[in-house]
Amino acid sequence: MKPNERETAEGFLYTDEYQLTMAQLYFRMGLHEKSGQFDHFFRSYPDYGLHKAGYCIAAGLEWLLDWMENTHCRDEDIKYLKSQTNRVGGRVFGDDFLDWLRKNGNFDSISMQAIPEGRVVHPNVPLTVVQGPLAIAQILETPLLNHLNYQTLIATKAARIKESGRGKVMLEFGLRRGQDKGANAGARAALIGGADFSSNVGLSHVLGYQPKGTHAHSMVQLFMALGEGELQAFRAYADVYPDDCLLLVDTIDTLESGIPNAIIVFEELRRKGHQPVGIRLDSGDLAYLSIQAARMLDQAGFSDTVIVLSNNLDELVIWQILTQIQEEAPRYGVEADHLINRLVYGVGTRLIVSDGDPALGGVYKLVAVCDDDIWVPALKISESHNKTPNPGHKHVWRIYDQRGKATADLLTLEDERPGEQSEIILHHPSQTSKFRELRSESVTEVESLLVDILREGKLVAELLPIEGLRERRDADVERLDPGVRRLMNPHIYHVSLSERLWNMKQELVASALSPIHSRAAP
Amino acid sequence: MKPNERETAEGFLYTDEYQLTMAQLYFRMGLHEKSGQFDHFFRSYPDYGLHKAGYCIAAGLEWLLDWMENTHCRDEDIKYLKSQTNRVGGRVFGDDFLDWLRKNGNFDSISMQAIPEGRVVHPNVPLTVVQGPLAIAQILETPLLNHLNYQTLIATKAARIKESGRGKVMLEFGLRRGQDKGANAGARAALIGGADFSSNVGLSHVLGYQPKGTHAHSMVQLFMALGEGELQAFRAYADVYPDDCLLLVDTIDTLESGIPNAIIVFEELRRKGHQPVGIRLDSGDLAYLSIQAARMLDQAGFSDTVIVLSNNLDELVIWQILTQIQEEAPRYGVEADHLINRLVYGVGTRLIVSDGDPALGGVYKLVAVCDDDIWVPALKISESHNKTPNPGHKHVWRIYDQRGKATADLLTLEDERPGEQSEIILHHPSQTSKFRELRSESVTEVESLLVDILREGKLVAELLPIEGLRERRDADVERLDPGVRRLMNPHIYHVSLSERLWNMKQELVASALSPIHSRAAP
Repeated sequence: MKPNERETAEGFLYTDEYQLTMAQLYFRMGLHEKSGQFDHFFRSYPDYGLHKAGYCIAAGLEWLLDWMENTHCRDEDIKYLKSQTNRVGGRVFGDDFLDWLRKNGNFDSISMQAIPEGRVVHPNVPLTVVQGPLAIAQILETPLLNHLNYQTLIATKAARIKESGRGKVMLEFGLRRGQDKGANAGARAALIGGADFSSNVGLSHVLGYQPKGTHAHSMVQLFMALGEGELQAFRAYADVYPDDCLLLVDTIDTLESGIPNAIIVFEELRRKGHQPVGIRLDSGDLAYLSIQAARMLDQAGFSDTVIVLSNNLDELVIWQILTQIQEEAPRYGVEADHLINRLVYGVGTRLIVSDGDPALGGVYKLVAVCDDDIWVPALKISESHNKTPNPGHKHVWRIYDQRGKATADLLTLEDERPGEQSEIILHHPSQTSKFRELRSESVTEVESLLVDILREGKLVAELLPIEGLRERRDADVERLDPGVRRLMNPHIYHVSLSERLWNMKQELVASALSPIHSRAAP
Repeated sequence: MKPNERETAEGFLYTDEYQLTMAQLYFRMGLHEKSGQFDHFFRSYPDYGLHKAGYCIAAGLEWLLDWMENTHCRDEDIKYLKSQTNRVGGRVFGDDFLDWLRKNGNFDSISMQAIPEGRVVHPNVPLTVVQGPLAIAQILETPLLNHLNYQTLIATKAARIKESGRGKVMLEFGLRRGQDKGANAGARAALIGGADFSSNVGLSHVLGYQPKGTHAHSMVQLFMALGEGELQAFRAYADVYPDDCLLLVDTIDTLESGIPNAIIVFEELRRKGHQPVGIRLDSGDLAYLSIQAARMLDQAGFSDTVIVLSNNLDELVIWQILTQIQEEAPRYGVEADHLINRLVYGVGTRLIVSDGDPALGGVYKLVAVCDDDIWVPALKISESHNKTPNPGHKHVWRIYDQRGKATADLLTLEDERPGEQSEIILHHPSQTSKFRELRSESVTEVESLLVDILREGKLVAELLPIEGLRERRDADVERLDPGVRRLMNPHIYHVSLSERLWNMKQELVASALSPIHSRAAP
């Protein structure tokens, strides 16, 4: 894509055609400047097949806001829309609508609330609430979902991988396997969700992190092709980077060649007063090889070097490796915990694409319209009751129990204040007779989750740097029940409705279906 | 990301840190301007779990070339690299190297061959062959893989979905589920591989296609919230778009409300002299509902309207729907083939993320180095023999049999001309004793696949518009054996080595391993 094409393809037209045809329809009906409210939420956790996530980490908001701030409908966009033709050769978009769009095609009219980036979030809870003129809020659907779905997906995967690695250093290596420039968004989300550093140079620069990386097989191959060997390649590396000497040891044969050569070079470095960093294993049985590597490095007096593991890692693979190390290391005279504490994880493909469930199904649904200054809830009925979105303006609360752990998220009507009630009723979101009662004695905190972000296009929240988002993530994950954090078959966290919201939803469903029922029984 | 940050994160530093540390090492050793050859290839077809691809479609090259042409190392990039510090606080990159990089940090020195976009490609065949100064060709690894892996993955998935839909119109709907701006690359690849149109407005504009889309549930919901109903919403749509009237019928109840209301509006349109386009089904049992929809539309005299299906479609789901229609439609008095011929597929999430196998493992391996004007083959040994790349300069040939179908791809040394031989030996790529002989009588064509693309940075090939790439794809897919095109358990297409390439590889492996073997047996 040429630079000018990129401006077009990533600008105001970075949306689906039907958003524009609907916007024109609203314009023709005189509805385009009526205020609407759209809720953005996802319906289920990423499900990786064998193992389903028990929580997600919100991410992507800042980049969405940047896009909104820097995007408006340009003359060239209008010219293009003018040129679109329908089936009989007429214009798709009329001049009056395009004139309006030229003037109003920006996001200065949008107000937004959101659950901030870095926070733990759950299904069917509004993560982003958009209010604005119907035509503009409608066009925003696609870019909003595009920016938020993917980063939330990857921050979630990263959080799981970080947990399975027992919090040890984890590096994001996915640039070559992401979706074109989307890989940068993936690296950012990984850094929010659990990665400590990334190999991606430009993105690390932009976010203020030191990118990580040493050398690849090609360096060793080059020396071999020139008639030298792995040892000479390692020596060259140690000469150039004496204080950052981390050697990839599997180009020829890990145990027979790579590690012995690395140890020779480490000894030379030590004699010169430098501290070698460690080795990287990128193929083979990483549990077995890391035990053998630890044994050999320990014997040579390098027990404080790190062992970086890479090659198709994800949370299950890491869990398996650690389990195997715990069992087998002692047989080789290696202390398992010491080995586990020196491991570093380089995670590429399976993180950047969220292998196992590569898309988060976040949606953006009209939940209310302002008609003559009165907000009216809107509904979309779904065949499966639990897919019917929750209508109207809502508050989102997180309720903490006596241990200080989050016990449920509660959606209420706008004027409800569950923290001031002596008893909180948590209604199951789709089953009529299922509910839970919480006495105020057993509740230590009722926290409001949605924060004002934009008021008519103006940023009214402070956006934290990545470091702040990580602190949020750590604090939130710490307040989850261990069962919810479990890698396999986690406890299902409760997302509930208040009694009043539940009743309002039932009434709306009944009235939407009544014309059908009356037709069916004449 | 702010616009200036985007320039940084998508520019010359859009690579992995280790490419830069290796480039500096080559510089220190005086190797940085030696010519190297890197082959880009993938090792296995996408494997979607139940079903594995039998071929891939090459895509992404033009956007890679655009990136290379518009990217160079800027002063700001140098400033940043200067600021990188190592573990003891010293500089990672020295001034001499950075001076060289400032001058030479672009891709004007790169020569490239490639199998053109749109062509059918197979594992272990070089799709892209890069020659250039080692330091620059090394830095190019990450952006090259980033641009080519993803588009080839999606073009492949699109080709499969197109085949399972029996070539009927297929629309790409994935913008909201792709990886940030990477979704544009996915839409392009889908258009190369099998999609006829996309809903993505900006990208369609850039590529010269009419974007597709009509309306979403939100339009119907809006009318309901304002005290009107689905029928009024449909009427409004028909008023604004009388010649493009395609109605989404599942907001309330498809059979009880959506289709009857659509038929009312279609009749009104017809009375006014307009031809209604059709309906879209986006939930429920799409096979059953499409049969019922066809029955109802036929009875009302709208048997020439289309039925668009969407909602988590992929090649297996489409195959299942068609199988079910074929069996069940006659029971409802609907002619199955007529129904199948009026279907249109809207494919979103599962196409844009290549659900089932969301990353293509393309790699970029050093295969030769030019030392004192002599090219020396380079090797990386892998524990599994079939992962060891094929060293040296190579030719890639596609051999067609008497039916005119492609029967094998053959890698040979540079000076071999298998088309001029009376007998072609196809050696299995990893098993010593396995080979196949082809007499020239049974060969109708031996085609050279690699095309010169760049000569020292200058474009020397004509790049076709998407329409030309689609023609290439159609022609190539047509020349595949039906067994290779099969959706489940396809025939394994042969990718073979010539006898001479096989022997050269064996010798190199033996000589690389000899120091280890001699150490093991002292």
